[in-house]
Amino acid sequence: MPSESLEYPTKPYSKVNRYDVRATYALKTIHELVNTCPILHVSFTMPDSPYPMMLPMIGQMGSFARPSADMGDVLELYLHGYVSSRLINLSRGSGSSSGEGQGEGKGEEEAGLPVTVGASHLDGLVLALTPNSHSYNYRSAVLFGRAELVTDEAERLWAMELVTNGVVRDRYRHTRVPPNRAEMQSTSILRVRVAAGSAKIRSGTPSDERADKEDEALLARVWTGVVPVHYTMGTPIPGPYNRVETLPSYLEEFVRDGNEDARAVAAEAAAKVMKGKPKEED
Amino acid sequence: MPSESLEYPTKPYSKVNRYDVRATYALKTIHELVNTCPILHVSFTMPDSPYPMMLPMIGQMGSFARPSADMGDVLELYLHGYVSSRLINLSRGSGSSSGEGQGEGKGEEEAGLPVTVGASHLDGLVLALTPNSHSYNYRSAVLFGRAELVTDEAERLWAMELVTNGVVRDRYRHTRVPPNRAEMQSTSILRVRVAAGSAKIRSGTPSDERADKEDEALLARVWTGVVPVHYTMGTPIPGPYNRVETLPSYLEEFVRDGNEDARAVAAEAAAKVMKGKPKEED
Repeated sequence: MPSESLEYPTKPYSKVNRYDVRATYALKTIHELVNTCPILHVSFTMPDSPYPMMLPMIGQMGSFARPSADMGDVLELYLHGYVSSRLINLSRGSGSSSGEGQGEGKGEEEAGLPVTVGASHLDGLVLALTPNSHSYNYRSAVLFGRAELVTDEAERLWAMELVTNGVVRDRYRHTRVPPNRAEMQSTSILRVRVAAGSAKIRSGTPSDERADKEDEALLARVWTGVVPVHYTMGTPIPGPYNRVETLPSYLEEFVRDGNEDARAVAAEAAAKVMKGKPKEED
Repeated sequence: MPSESLEYPTKPYSKVNRYDVRATYALKTIHELVNTCPILHVSFTMPDSPYPMMLPMIGQMGSFARPSADMGDVLELYLHGYVSSRLINLSRGSGSSSGEGQGEGKGEEEAGLPVTVGASHLDGLVLALTPNSHSYNYRSAVLFGRAELVTDEAERLWAMELVTNGVVRDRYRHTRVPPNRAEMQSTSILRVRVAAGSAKIRSGTPSDERADKEDEALLARVWTGVVPVHYTMGTPIPGPYNRVETLPSYLEEFVRDGNEDARAVAAEAAAKVMKGKPKEED
């Protein structure tokens, strides 16, 4: 079975209900959206607050057991960066299945803190004839899973390299590695075992109601189309203690390739003919 | 009292614990971060799931009672766009204070669904000598509040204009307005009364440990500095039924000004000398 075909199970909490966007549960699509999203939003319930906590974090999908796994395989999410002490304490303390009682069904009362992770990409502003038909071209993924603190030293090192290179291609080996004892102690990495996930993708040109598209006076007045939107990396700016006069080629190529890819993704999204069922509302 | 000085109360759930970034509770800063963020991540607890729900949504802060209020005033958050039926039903159904019992303290058991809203901006990749000292320049805000469905017709219309113009400056009056009956019926707008909020801002050049900064061989080998990152809007692409041959000036100026602002923000962040307490870890 080709791994591209693997899909996350559709749980009540992960099912996409809107049908004017293309929903997918394919691991490959979801994992790629997560891995190319520079900021993930991680949410989890706090025992003493009616409001979920939300943290912007950095993360990458991967498999420590099988590092050569590809994007369509079963992977874990490794979270790094701004790991709050609250999140770490909760991940550490939620190893038992007792008292959860939220009725998610048997077989899921496992170790780890339940977290929800959002990864959203903006690809364009879709300008239609009416405010209601305005939209974004976008790709967004949500993962649901259990987060646990990674304690194994080899796995921690592997994850630090994974995450560093996930942000800047090939950066890790070009820095002072391995991390020293103090750095290892001050670094927390969470591993999220994924229970479910989904993605929503909207691309293409505007889509207005027929009555508006037949209104000649309106068509003569309102510009419709797509403004592509993408991230751009500017010229790298050397820091105050930089001594490397020429920007290394791996960085130059990373910036150039990243910008070309980003521009192409937004342009392709703008030009695409919308697939999926016809939309009813926006 | 100048409104710039208003701050959100620091609640246990909203307090920023990390100190190597600049934390702020100023309404003005937080509201501006929300209003310039093209995709907000909205999280809320689902009664039948251990995982919080998370939705990418569009939103703007404003005051229907006092439309001329500025960014530093007390404002509500209006959410529009991909309002899920789950979110709407929960907002509708959570008008009572019964059974919440999460101990947030008296005076807060109010109407509306508790939601947490994240607004994050990426301004740059901060490349340091060691993986651990790598960072982002970023600005992120989190709001905590109670969401309710807006039912008043005038407020709904006002919010639709607010949100539309929040995405594309001055777009609303250049489209076919007001929305017709079917459009009004198919549009859901949520108003979030904000209980607390906070923002974190990291800007400036890399910051490495002294021992690494004194390692001549390391300095000779590792490029350090900032890669500015910002959104770019590409050339607007007319849609298949567009008849307006010349891009209207308000759109041309919106794209040009938006791109100039975005580039300037990232460049300024890269150049800034870090304020706040010295960092200990990253």
